[in-house]
Amino acid sequence: MQAPGRASGPAHRTGEAVVTVLGADGQPLRDTELVVRQTGHEFLFGCIGFDLIPYANGEVGQEGEGSVFGGDVPVVQAEDFAEKWLQLFNFATLPFYWGDFEPVRGRPDTQRLLAAARWFADRGVVVKGHPLAWHTVTAPWLLELSDEEALEAQRARIRRDVGDFAGLIDSWDVINEVVIMPVFDKYDNGLTRVARRFGRIPLIRTVFDEARAANPSATLLLNDFDMSTAYECLIEGVLEAGIQVDALGLQSHMHQGYWGEEKTLEVLDRFARYGLPLHLTESTLLSGAIMPPEIEDLNDYQVSEWPSTPEGEARQADEVVRHYRTMLSHPAVEAVTYWGLSDAGAWLGAPVGFLRADGTPKPAYDALHALVKQKWWLEPTPLRTDGEGRVRVSGWRGSYEVEAAGATAGFQIAAGAGTLDVRLGRSES
Amino acid sequence: MQAPGRASGPAHRTGEAVVTVLGADGQPLRDTELVVRQTGHEFLFGCIGFDLIPYANGEVGQEGEGSVFGGDVPVVQAEDFAEKWLQLFNFATLPFYWGDFEPVRGRPDTQRLLAAARWFADRGVVVKGHPLAWHTVTAPWLLELSDEEALEAQRARIRRDVGDFAGLIDSWDVINEVVIMPVFDKYDNGLTRVARRFGRIPLIRTVFDEARAANPSATLLLNDFDMSTAYECLIEGVLEAGIQVDALGLQSHMHQGYWGEEKTLEVLDRFARYGLPLHLTESTLLSGAIMPPEIEDLNDYQVSEWPSTPEGEARQADEVVRHYRTMLSHPAVEAVTYWGLSDAGAWLGAPVGFLRADGTPKPAYDALHALVKQKWWLEPTPLRTDGEGRVRVSGWRGSYEVEAAGATAGFQIAAGAGTLDVRLGRSES
Repeated sequence: MQAPGRASGPAHRTGEAVVTVLGADGQPLRDTELVVRQTGHEFLFGCIGFDLIPYANGEVGQEGEGSVFGGDVPVVQAEDFAEKWLQLFNFATLPFYWGDFEPVRGRPDTQRLLAAARWFADRGVVVKGHPLAWHTVTAPWLLELSDEEALEAQRARIRRDVGDFAGLIDSWDVINEVVIMPVFDKYDNGLTRVARRFGRIPLIRTVFDEARAANPSATLLLNDFDMSTAYECLIEGVLEAGIQVDALGLQSHMHQGYWGEEKTLEVLDRFARYGLPLHLTESTLLSGAIMPPEIEDLNDYQVSEWPSTPEGEARQADEVVRHYRTMLSHPAVEAVTYWGLSDAGAWLGAPVGFLRADGTPKPAYDALHALVKQKWWLEPTPLRTDGEGRVRVSGWRGSYEVEAAGATAGFQIAAGAGTLDVRLGRSES
Repeated sequence: MQAPGRASGPAHRTGEAVVTVLGADGQPLRDTELVVRQTGHEFLFGCIGFDLIPYANGEVGQEGEGSVFGGDVPVVQAEDFAEKWLQLFNFATLPFYWGDFEPVRGRPDTQRLLAAARWFADRGVVVKGHPLAWHTVTAPWLLELSDEEALEAQRARIRRDVGDFAGLIDSWDVINEVVIMPVFDKYDNGLTRVARRFGRIPLIRTVFDEARAANPSATLLLNDFDMSTAYECLIEGVLEAGIQVDALGLQSHMHQGYWGEEKTLEVLDRFARYGLPLHLTESTLLSGAIMPPEIEDLNDYQVSEWPSTPEGEARQADEVVRHYRTMLSHPAVEAVTYWGLSDAGAWLGAPVGFLRADGTPKPAYDALHALVKQKWWLEPTPLRTDGEGRVRVSGWRGSYEVEAAGATAGFQIAAGAGTLDVRLGRSES
């Protein structure tokens, strides 16, 4: 066999497959020229998909919608945005903030979110919902309920929404920021009351049980911004209590500056020791001024203008490369979600996007694209099968396609080395 | 009945007893003049008793001992110190830092500590051991062991020492600073390795189980300096895991300044919500310059001289009164231990003592004494029994004595209102 492609990544990101290529008649294609190309990554390169909800719902270009990428945004601009999104990412986070999703009890925004989830799923994107329980932007009407009633409403909400979206959304940030939840004191809210009343771990157990029952095959995450020992202690308590958590969510907003490789790896090592996959659920790197270090709650920093600058964009591109390289270098990391492709409508107005507000790409966009779709990617590679119809393909874990004589077939490269048969069908073209 | 004494404290600190006073013949002493006086506090006013170990062991005034209050310290000075200690406190913390207690494996300092514990117990002082497990000053020889062997050595140490001291020491800081223990990175040590290897909660379960088995009636504490949500999360995990903790230890070194009433009450409220008694295990208030706020690990602050100043002493006296008032105002607090009566030999050389290094009292000593033995104390009070031999005594919870016609008897005032008989024996005098 000829040894094709490159396996330039770390062993925990790559794999090898010995593929026996069969023709439409089921016979091995011996000594045959073909082309192998990668079509997708196993690693979850994520981004919020909030901006695409109006587009997915056909609201773009219509009047009367005020949201980002809704309303009077030209369709062509939204299409371009969608194209750029799909070029870079394979994992979308959709918003389920309860206070926005169901501001009036009993009138959830289910249909719009279903359309958005379907739009992504139809394009091969894995979709995650965020979050099912969080004290911020929780349903305001919880405040009218007793603690017991609020907890029951929270359970019912999870049951309903996880059930409604099962099959389209099989990954959930079940509960967000539990470390601070019971002692959160910025404003009164129903979920802080519940967390303080019943305790962190019983609340986590309740919401995980409810989500698990509604979709037993879902990937359920605990998510937090607190990277200190507090989150470690919470996780250890949760695991000791026998609650099954499928992955740990680590927020990583870096409005106050890039963490750097050393701190990042220290954080990853600390949380990797629980043996669970790590998802960097909310990464941001700025292309403008950095938020002062003395700000404790990022929400407290309000500025009227926060421009993206040429120097900031150069720095951001460098940091994005370093951040993603560091993430992929660590075997425990299974997903990195970036918190906003565009500066338009970004949280806090910060220039976190890989696109400027006008839709033009910053250097970070091209830099990350060069990694995800070039450096960490098997380009179309001409190969020749051996006398038994086999080729050896070695590359980044993910989905691949083999094409010969106008017919194609897909296969996967997973961990380790595998042997598999693919049978060519007719090509679409 | 005549209503005597004062019950000037908060309801959660005071009680009332209707006492029927019987003569030596068992008959009620009707319409009889007597005197009631308080002899002790139920509240645990604690202090470290480290300085008194040489004195309790007859080492003071001998040559060759270099420790504080050992060696060539005049006996009279040590006696004065002991007297001042006993005037103020009823609860002593003795040191069981493993690295000091058993620097050579198999040669623990048991006899000296037994003598010290006995000295305190003979004077009516409740004794606590601190700590059974801690990564700082742990046995250096743990580093030569495997993680499994180190854990087994830790268990054996607890079994041995808690057993050896049972009856004299029935209160233990079982494990200290677990929040940081597995990620402590200042230097390698055997217990950090064990905590990281087995996890915080399994380690806590192991050490508590061992201590409980060795002395089932002991009061076992978890102790930490971390007052953040991290300690909350740890506690919640420990309690969810079904580990019985008898009291929560909150360190409260205030080298960087008095917390103030608001922060103190906020901390107490957060930790009181677990329904466990709170022990402020390590309180300090300085009578000199305050450590700069940017120091994270107090051990990092090293100065050649740290004098007690007149202004500092006035401030300290004020803050001591505020601190103890705040502590006693909160129903969950059951003990406050001050971390050093004297400046001599104080941790970090800081002027934390209520006595100066030369043994003279600072204003804080007198201020606290005025609270503990005057304001929060029932002075000797003449009373007259009613026609059935009863007097009503209302005061701070603790031990009391009734004296009539040269005979005395003791009784307790506990929570709520009680009725009890006391029978006078012959007075000691």
